[in-house]
Amino acid sequence: MEIVGEKINTSRTSVGQAVRERDAGFIEALAREQAQAGAAYLDVNSGLALYPEQEGEDLAWLVSVVQGATDLPACVDSTRGEALEAALRVHRGPAMINSVNGDPETMAAVFPLAKQYGCKVVATTTSRAERVPAGSRERLRVAEAIAREATRAGIPLEDLYFDPLVLSLATGEKNALTFLETVRVLKKGLPGAKTIAGLSNVSFGLPQRRLLNRGFLVLALGCGMDAAILDPTDRELVALARATETLLGGDPFCARYLKAFREGRLGP
Amino acid sequence: MEIVGEKINTSRTSVGQAVRERDAGFIEALAREQAQAGAAYLDVNSGLALYPEQEGEDLAWLVSVVQGATDLPACVDSTRGEALEAALRVHRGPAMINSVNGDPETMAAVFPLAKQYGCKVVATTTSRAERVPAGSRERLRVAEAIAREATRAGIPLEDLYFDPLVLSLATGEKNALTFLETVRVLKKGLPGAKTIAGLSNVSFGLPQRRLLNRGFLVLALGCGMDAAILDPTDRELVALARATETLLGGDPFCARYLKAFREGRLGP
Repeated sequence: MEIVGEKINTSRTSVGQAVRERDAGFIEALAREQAQAGAAYLDVNSGLALYPEQEGEDLAWLVSVVQGATDLPACVDSTRGEALEAALRVHRGPAMINSVNGDPETMAAVFPLAKQYGCKVVATTTSRAERVPAGSRERLRVAEAIAREATRAGIPLEDLYFDPLVLSLATGEKNALTFLETVRVLKKGLPGAKTIAGLSNVSFGLPQRRLLNRGFLVLALGCGMDAAILDPTDRELVALARATETLLGGDPFCARYLKAFREGRLGP
Repeated sequence: MEIVGEKINTSRTSVGQAVRERDAGFIEALAREQAQAGAAYLDVNSGLALYPEQEGEDLAWLVSVVQGATDLPACVDSTRGEALEAALRVHRGPAMINSVNGDPETMAAVFPLAKQYGCKVVATTTSRAERVPAGSRERLRVAEAIAREATRAGIPLEDLYFDPLVLSLATGEKNALTFLETVRVLKKGLPGAKTIAGLSNVSFGLPQRRLLNRGFLVLALGCGMDAAILDPTDRELVALARATETLLGGDPFCARYLKAFREGRLGP
């Protein structure tokens, strides 16, 4: 499982303040702790910028700070073409874009940039017509339309990370199940394409969220999910994910599990 | 998920001593704490009895102590007909027998008792010829043979709990995966029959066993497993299982999850 570290997001008050004040030290610390905890990408989000032009400036600054502090690529979190381009222009190496969706205008803005800068792309299986489609078959159809458009733009299927978007169980008891079915259907229907999720929506509005988030991550890995946007410094969550990968048969002689244990990454 | 409480087992030194000394108070405490933690059955095992005749006497004593302290049925843990019968004779209501397997002699000893006393039966998908078959298809074939024999003895499929037996990941990286596939194959191939597992074998010989056990329980529930033999007083494990049941869509309005939270069963 590839981890996209979620912590550099201006929806968190302290991060919003650090971005406004250009407090590089604060952002560097968040970048380093997530890199040390095993993140493969670091999400940078400035969705709460006051002016549209500001978002691109903020993202470009965040990219340069993050890449100054770590060797990791950023996952640039915006659907606005100008903001993405401002960040990608200063990014070293191939970044990840988070995200495109089935809306033709968004795809027209994002895919040419992804092609130009050689990016991976997170694609939510949503269209403008229908914000989150009800069933896994409908979500697959949106994903297929996105895949066709990506192929047309010269982006290989392997660089797409489909996010079926999970809604909270508090608003529908089948929401997690539909997500899990969609991951299975996507892995089968679009072989080669990857799947990803932001985990924590599933438990929004419910108590003891960590239990639901952990169970959900394990179930999603069991369905073949490739990546997750989460807090890599949640050691218990990440250790459970690593144990799950070993349970799923991809760890000969449990070598990776034992290495993680020796390195103290499986908890106390 | 039905929980079979695993703690009253003479392989644990303190339990072995309590059974030898007929220390009813010690056993009653173990029975009560497992009942309060949500067990549906309480396993009683005296496999380390010194003489074969002793095992039946021990089991009968354990059943009467457990049923004196709680309202729960016992899960009588032996494959020896005489020992099982000694325990079932004193058991009130329908017990569970743990276990039968594909060996004709064992089935001939156990199924008539199960029929006579109206028991549920745990059936491991093993035969004498081949201790633990390698693949899920082979395990299904053993289960089908057991199901045929049970039907012949008048035991409904709904009363069978198939245990595909998980071997430790330390002895084979695909062991958990094969178990999980077998659960799926059994649920599909023998509709109505239940599935069950003793969890903790999966992590034998590996560090941080709780991580592997938790991940394995969640994955098994995701494959449709109906019951598990585990320590119900492991609050974090059971809370994670309850969260997983809610994630799997069977909890309208999250009512059971919220009730468990209000009752303090989801941890601190």
